[in-house]
Amino acid sequence: MPGIGPRTAQRLALHLLRQPEEKIRNFSNALINAHSQVGQCQKCFHLSSEEECEICTDQKRDKEIICVVADSRDLLALERTREYKGLYHVLGGLISPMDGISPDMLQVSSLVKRVDENESKEVILALTPSVEGDTTSLYLARLLKPFTKVSRIAYGLPVGSELEYADEITLSRALEGRRSME
Amino acid sequence: MPGIGPRTAQRLALHLLRQPEEKIRNFSNALINAHSQVGQCQKCFHLSSEEECEICTDQKRDKEIICVVADSRDLLALERTREYKGLYHVLGGLISPMDGISPDMLQVSSLVKRVDENESKEVILALTPSVEGDTTSLYLARLLKPFTKVSRIAYGLPVGSELEYADEITLSRALEGRRSME
Repeated sequence: MPGIGPRTAQRLALHLLRQPEEKIRNFSNALINAHSQVGQCQKCFHLSSEEECEICTDQKRDKEIICVVADSRDLLALERTREYKGLYHVLGGLISPMDGISPDMLQVSSLVKRVDENESKEVILALTPSVEGDTTSLYLARLLKPFTKVSRIAYGLPVGSELEYADEITLSRALEGRRSME
Repeated sequence: MPGIGPRTAQRLALHLLRQPEEKIRNFSNALINAHSQVGQCQKCFHLSSEEECEICTDQKRDKEIICVVADSRDLLALERTREYKGLYHVLGGLISPMDGISPDMLQVSSLVKRVDENESKEVILALTPSVEGDTTSLYLARLLKPFTKVSRIAYGLPVGSELEYADEITLSRALEGRRSME
C-alpha cells in the first residue's frame, strides 16, 4: 500500500492480530461493502456510490463549465478551495507515451461527447505542470477547441513563496504568464 | 549573520584564528574593498561598483520594459532564468505598515520618475505573493497606470508540483488566473 513500508506494515499487521475477532469482522465487512458500493459517476467518472455523483446532481452548480482533472484526488483538492462552482471530468490519468498510456485509455472521448452534447461554455484544464500534464493539456485543447472555450489554470509562484527560492522554470512560467493589472 | 547559529559561529571563529596572519590580512582587506566599492546603481538601485550597473548599461537589453523587484536577490533569481531581457528596478523592500515601512522609504518615486521620463512600454511587478507583496503591487499599479501598461507575474502552481498537495489559496489563485489556450 502507498506510503506503508515493511516496518509500518509489520506494526499494522500485529496491531490487527491483537484486536478482538468482532472488530476485525466489522472492519472486513466495511471494506467489502465500500469496495462493492463505490463505483464511478457515469457522467464525470468521480468516485460515487450512485449512478451520478453528488456534484453532477447538485442543482446549484454551473453546468456550463467543466474542470478537467487527472484523478479524484485532484478534484477533492479543488473542492477544498470552495471557489469553483462548475462540474468536473475525471480523466483517470495523464497521457504518457513512456508509460504506454494513450488517450484511449483515459476518459477522453466521453469528455468530448459531453462537451459537444451539453454545449459547455468553458473547459478548464487543471492538470499538473509536468511533461505528461502539458502533453495532455495540449492534446485536449486541440480536440475541444471546435466545441468550446478552453483555458488552463495558472502556473507560477505559489502563494507565500519567496521569489528568491523559486526554481528557474517556475520563474520563467510566472514571467511568461504575467497578467495585466486592472 | 543570517543562517549562522552560535555553534557554526564558534567553528568559523576558531578556523579563522588558526589561519596564517597573511591570509587573514588579505581577507580583511578584500572585505573592506568590497564594502567601500560596491554601492547602488543610480538608475535601478541594484548592487553595482559603478555609477550605473552592468544591466542598465547593457546595450542589448530592452530599455522599454522595467521589472520591479523587492531586492537584489530577487533580481539575481530572475536573471538565472535567462528569459528576461528588459531592465529592473530594485525597490529595497516592500510596503509594510506593520513594520513601519512606507512607500517613501522605498525606491518608489525614483521608479515613477524613471517610467515617466523613459516612456516605458511596460512595467512588470515581480513581487512575492504575500500580504506585503500584494499591497505594494496594488499601490504601484495605481501610481504607474497613468504612464504605462502595468502587469504582474503569474501566481499559481509551481512547475513539477502536484495539484493534490497544493494549498487552497494557491489553487484558488491558479483557477482565478486561468488563461485561454491558443
